[in-house]
Amino acid sequence: MRVLVTGAGGMVGRKLTERLASDGTLRGETITELDLHDIVAMEAPSMPGVAVRTHVGDLAEAGAAARLAASRPDVVFHLASIVSGEAEADFDLGYRVNLDGTRALFDALRLAGHGPRVVFTSSISVFGAPFPEVIADDFHATPLTSYGTQKVMSEALLADYTRRGFFDGVGIRLPTICVRPGRPNRAASGFFSGIIREPLNGKPAILPVPRSVVHTHASPRSAVGFLLRAAEIDGEAVGPRRNLNMPGVGVSVAEQIEALGRIAGPEAVGLIREEPDETIWAIVKNWPTRFDARRARELGFVAETDFDAIIRAYIEDELAGKIA
Amino acid sequence: MRVLVTGAGGMVGRKLTERLASDGTLRGETITELDLHDIVAMEAPSMPGVAVRTHVGDLAEAGAAARLAASRPDVVFHLASIVSGEAEADFDLGYRVNLDGTRALFDALRLAGHGPRVVFTSSISVFGAPFPEVIADDFHATPLTSYGTQKVMSEALLADYTRRGFFDGVGIRLPTICVRPGRPNRAASGFFSGIIREPLNGKPAILPVPRSVVHTHASPRSAVGFLLRAAEIDGEAVGPRRNLNMPGVGVSVAEQIEALGRIAGPEAVGLIREEPDETIWAIVKNWPTRFDARRARELGFVAETDFDAIIRAYIEDELAGKIA
Repeated sequence: MRVLVTGAGGMVGRKLTERLASDGTLRGETITELDLHDIVAMEAPSMPGVAVRTHVGDLAEAGAAARLAASRPDVVFHLASIVSGEAEADFDLGYRVNLDGTRALFDALRLAGHGPRVVFTSSISVFGAPFPEVIADDFHATPLTSYGTQKVMSEALLADYTRRGFFDGVGIRLPTICVRPGRPNRAASGFFSGIIREPLNGKPAILPVPRSVVHTHASPRSAVGFLLRAAEIDGEAVGPRRNLNMPGVGVSVAEQIEALGRIAGPEAVGLIREEPDETIWAIVKNWPTRFDARRARELGFVAETDFDAIIRAYIEDELAGKIA
Repeated sequence: MRVLVTGAGGMVGRKLTERLASDGTLRGETITELDLHDIVAMEAPSMPGVAVRTHVGDLAEAGAAARLAASRPDVVFHLASIVSGEAEADFDLGYRVNLDGTRALFDALRLAGHGPRVVFTSSISVFGAPFPEVIADDFHATPLTSYGTQKVMSEALLADYTRRGFFDGVGIRLPTICVRPGRPNRAASGFFSGIIREPLNGKPAILPVPRSVVHTHASPRSAVGFLLRAAEIDGEAVGPRRNLNMPGVGVSVAEQIEALGRIAGPEAVGLIREEPDETIWAIVKNWPTRFDARRARELGFVAETDFDAIIRAYIEDELAGKIA
């Protein structure tokens, strides 16, 4: 089993890589080769007996994708992407990385001709307001960000390349991944994690949007679970509609904060300061709220069912079970 | 009023150009410059006092789109596209013309910076089976052809470029245009016209799919009407969802043939020969049937309301009112 991960240096990419290294298998087969790609240098996990290679570069650059496809990976996890805030701030960079890079990778895999499973991380930001109360699986994708647009376009490519038999793709529309460990990134969704993570670490956090905002979340642990499920799932069962809304926990910011209070007490909640940010609000107000995600559930994708579980996953996975 | 038409040599492009030439105005303003583009040489209409220029070339070629944008057109009709059958047969050509050509044009207009109205002809082939009985305006686009995929991707670009303020785009998802005059083309939908046009001209026609197939049609005359309406419509009224399902007449092939019989008699019907074609059927069976098209109707887009009217439009516009 040869595996390629793009965006392996990102948060989800690192967690996926750690999981692959600790499992040593994928789809019931022993991993023999692991190619890790990112635009910045990353650490390779120690996997005795496995050829682990790291690749640093820009997928949209001529020849870069072909070099990755040359190892003829059986499973490709295509996670490489710049985040929503960055894609909105830098139009050209967003299209280059999120669209051209994806297309270059897909084309390189098409030309390699061996037909791998390709798991693509799309996003719920393919959807744009106004929304029904619960978003059904057949609701149209009308993004209101360039990031969402680039994901929609990549999804369309994934489906067509799959239909043509070039590879066997599954696109997973991730809800907001929460609680993100580490430092804040430029994702407009960053505060959803920040208001939980920072207080759990005894630090102040800023809430830039109203508490009434409802949004759907899944833990990094669930995100890795989605990726593995997408790698192993029977393509026939997915059918021609290859892009799936992932399940998650739909809660208001107020409910997130209540869960934090239940788990970490009022001192933690007291560390959250409201500081409205028009730029973030302009993006977030057009984001989807709750999902049906029936197809994904039926296909065996599993997420947390309440926000307390999401906070506990963070404490277990990142804080060794202890709150600061 | 400066107008640019790409794909001006195609059937709809020629009819649009004729109409612009005969009206002499668009959006209530006198047309002063008309740029016509196609990949093949085309005839320029005679428009006294108007600077009519023809351009022949490939939009995806470096510099081609920038040359068109240099005239700073106020309204751009982007019709250039290869048809569904051709895009399915030639993967690379389809993406080059239908996606790269569109993106090159949109980028050239973005860089020109004057913010024109851009009318883009998309297609109902952005939809893929299975369908509800009537397709609502918020039904998701999951195409089952490369052509439909390229249209979905172009629609997403159109919406994002509009949202960013680069131009003011309106995408119109044309139903099958019927009755197409002239010789058959490589569109998989060609027979929908052929079974009407050929008998009306005293010639035999082949029906490659079952008579039970239901499909939505509008006349070339209506298609031109859609384009003009899309050029003049208030962008604010359209809102952020820039791609609209156009109205049309949803009928079965059997009903098409009944209408032909009512208008041209049983001899005309007798000229239709059933000859199943698996390639065409594989495409057509996944095409959408009936549309709600409520948004377009509310925005003032008007089509025929029965198939008899579609046949009569052909007889009036192409046969000078007389059946062979």
